[in-house]
Amino acid sequence: MIMNKKKSEEGLTVKKEENFSEWYQQLIVKSELADYTPVSGCIVFRPTAWGIWEKIRDEVDKKIKKMDVKNVYFPMFIPESLLKKEQEHVQGFAPEVAWVTQTGDAKLNERLAVRPTSEAIMYNSFSKWIRSWRDLPLKYNQWSNVVRWEFKYPIPFFRTREFVFNEGHTVFATKKQAEKEAMPIINMYKEILEKYMAIPGFIGKKTDKEKFAGAEYTLTIESYMPNGKAIQGPAFHHDGQNFSRAYDIKFLDENRKEKYAWQNTWAISTRMLGVMFAIHSDNKGLILPPKLAPNKTVIIPLLFEKNKKVLEKAKEIFKRLSKHNPILDDRSEITPGRKYNEWELKGIPLRIEIGPKDLEKKQVIIVRRNDGIKKEIKFKDIGKEVDENLTEIQEGIYKKADKLLKSALDKAENFNELLKKSGNKKIVLVPLCKNPECEDWIKEKTKGAKTLNIPLEQKPIKGKKCIWCKKPADYWVYVGKSY
Amino acid sequence: MIMNKKKSEEGLTVKKEENFSEWYQQLIVKSELADYTPVSGCIVFRPTAWGIWEKIRDEVDKKIKKMDVKNVYFPMFIPESLLKKEQEHVQGFAPEVAWVTQTGDAKLNERLAVRPTSEAIMYNSFSKWIRSWRDLPLKYNQWSNVVRWEFKYPIPFFRTREFVFNEGHTVFATKKQAEKEAMPIINMYKEILEKYMAIPGFIGKKTDKEKFAGAEYTLTIESYMPNGKAIQGPAFHHDGQNFSRAYDIKFLDENRKEKYAWQNTWAISTRMLGVMFAIHSDNKGLILPPKLAPNKTVIIPLLFEKNKKVLEKAKEIFKRLSKHNPILDDRSEITPGRKYNEWELKGIPLRIEIGPKDLEKKQVIIVRRNDGIKKEIKFKDIGKEVDENLTEIQEGIYKKADKLLKSALDKAENFNELLKKSGNKKIVLVPLCKNPECEDWIKEKTKGAKTLNIPLEQKPIKGKKCIWCKKPADYWVYVGKSY
Repeated sequence: MIMNKKKSEEGLTVKKEENFSEWYQQLIVKSELADYTPVSGCIVFRPTAWGIWEKIRDEVDKKIKKMDVKNVYFPMFIPESLLKKEQEHVQGFAPEVAWVTQTGDAKLNERLAVRPTSEAIMYNSFSKWIRSWRDLPLKYNQWSNVVRWEFKYPIPFFRTREFVFNEGHTVFATKKQAEKEAMPIINMYKEILEKYMAIPGFIGKKTDKEKFAGAEYTLTIESYMPNGKAIQGPAFHHDGQNFSRAYDIKFLDENRKEKYAWQNTWAISTRMLGVMFAIHSDNKGLILPPKLAPNKTVIIPLLFEKNKKVLEKAKEIFKRLSKHNPILDDRSEITPGRKYNEWELKGIPLRIEIGPKDLEKKQVIIVRRNDGIKKEIKFKDIGKEVDENLTEIQEGIYKKADKLLKSALDKAENFNELLKKSGNKKIVLVPLCKNPECEDWIKEKTKGAKTLNIPLEQKPIKGKKCIWCKKPADYWVYVGKSY
Repeated sequence: MIMNKKKSEEGLTVKKEENFSEWYQQLIVKSELADYTPVSGCIVFRPTAWGIWEKIRDEVDKKIKKMDVKNVYFPMFIPESLLKKEQEHVQGFAPEVAWVTQTGDAKLNERLAVRPTSEAIMYNSFSKWIRSWRDLPLKYNQWSNVVRWEFKYPIPFFRTREFVFNEGHTVFATKKQAEKEAMPIINMYKEILEKYMAIPGFIGKKTDKEKFAGAEYTLTIESYMPNGKAIQGPAFHHDGQNFSRAYDIKFLDENRKEKYAWQNTWAISTRMLGVMFAIHSDNKGLILPPKLAPNKTVIIPLLFEKNKKVLEKAKEIFKRLSKHNPILDDRSEITPGRKYNEWELKGIPLRIEIGPKDLEKKQVIIVRRNDGIKKEIKFKDIGKEVDENLTEIQEGIYKKADKLLKSALDKAENFNELLKKSGNKKIVLVPLCKNPECEDWIKEKTKGAKTLNIPLEQKPIKGKKCIWCKKPADYWVYVGKSY
């Protein structure tokens, strides 16, 4: 049994650039971010991964509270009849719903869906609570676990059958007011991705074919994975009056006229954790953005000679750096080299080494996890230098990811060009018409490339032809292989 | 429809002392803490209730993180075979389990329990992760939603089929180390109850009959409800090696000898919100402890004459008090009297009134929600006075609840005395032997009184006789009607 443990502590045995999928799965398990469970497709979020999610939750929470959004909690069960009220919505989710049919020994009269998302249960209450224009806007958010029993091959974080997300549900008196929320919300998410997760992305509108089940339109942030696939990130959906008509959310306006309300929904999910781990990490293991890493530094005293003074100094530095929640690795049964490997695997952003010679020179050695840069730092400068290096790591990994994304963005105006580029891991901006069949054909002929999103700022489209049917194009849209 | 809304805005129509149960249900709905849903026994936590729970969560979180506990997240589904591994545990929970049997159109091969608690799913992973004494102690916690499909009449917060709690799960190398955690944890919960929720309680050990399914023993904090019933609050369970044997959690000790680990679990749930609302509130509506109230003050300018200067001053005060997250109620279509009623119903701890005459006298009027005390406060003293009065409200409602609890504590040494006192809403300390049949008889003969807990500090028991069977008593234990 001890052997097993040792085995799992070993580093990654495959290379990211050679077998991305196997590399990712080893990374997730060996760096102790997650583990598999006896429930197929459901993972454990271990402390590092969950600590990062809590930090993201807190940052999103702060931002949306400033926008007057209030947190609530609705039941996770949704009676079947309620779920079925909005047709497009239920068609989108029904194939993936987990159903509770029994409690104790008794059979339920009506099946209960474990929420795949909470529109149905929330909007039933909204219709009771909203009576007059004075009750609007109503801006609620919930942090919840949801279940979508996908039958595709599950991947930790990316595609799990239970995942956790925020679901913002807002209600307005007019379409204009509802739509005014779109950019602040999607930009708020973009800031979380860029500033905290160090993930670049591009904002755009989904085609009708790819929008959320029940929405009038969907805005998303799409990102780019190191294996050449795009992945959808946080999303904002303007639902128009689709749900308010289905769930009877009416109000009396200032002229005492009865009207249906206008709604939005928006979300960021734990799926993004997987994107973050995959984008930044390398063949040594995990690389984490310092702003989200639960422990930002590890201090390793070199104790070959059991030098008491080295350990004392290490402890002093440990205290000085307490705001970074450092780890002091003073284990004597493990060699420094093995410690380096272990903490590199686990993604501690900055390593601080101190040995007897350093003590003489009144210095430590710092080693950056992301780029391996080593520096000698005088004791007196440690605080400032650690701050600066953590900032540089945060910026450095963002820049690297941004470079990768930018190198993948391309353009095509005829199908052969698209075929070649999408097969070559590019995200390709193409002119397209609104006919969903063109999207079907593209997907089939490219073996999987689909529309990602339509940039909000469009280059001139007049005179351009749809890349598939060659009729006049309606918009420029990004197309690529995607998760 | 507008009429319905108005009706629901009206105050409580029954008195707490006359019909507690109806008063409580009106309180919860009319003060907008919760609402019923189409899912029987499951409620919506509206913003005030959920905001309070988030504050409790954050405070508990801070305290347990200082004890080196780390947060994790495990799947909410538990395969039936896994749940059944610990016999006492499954017998305790099986009758209340909600079972997922279908996903999409497909029938599952094995039923999945929606977690009633997470021992089964967590300990399966613990047994993989724990190999050596170096992996211990392992201290994990999870904030999760759980389902126990009780068939008793559901009551908002108190008895809901889905509720939310923290579940601490800790693993140690020795029984001594595990037990050392008991008092710090139960005292941490007591501090949360007393300091934040203003709920007094008494700590003790459950009898074997009443302990947690699977535990070796259970410590609880019991509180006293205004209707004369006791209610169990946060609990600490020492599980001994019951679960480690059932789920095979073994480790090699320092002598490389294989041993089973020792475990604890501990929890506080949203049930306590109901206790808090019920204990403090009155016939005007909700009373909240200022430390947990999302909005601590409401400022009401008296605008009969549309006095611009009054409104300006109110806005200035609003800004000055921003740390208390005040509400400025400047609605012109509603009379001040109706505003008072509304905010009293909703439990804002402190009301600040300002009218033209106050402006002249450079003062405001403050009115305390809990005891109705009114004071004239000079503008320059507002900050200090608001702070002081909020502190006094917090202390005042605790003292009132503590007085109520103390007045209910009583003692009996013969059964007739117990019968009389427990029928008279007392919590009665009695001598009892360990035979569970005595507890059964007491419950039957008193029409519901059961053992609450055994105080940790025992008065001399030698020579005392069991209040039921009259054989030598083993301990003093509190007995009373209970939820």
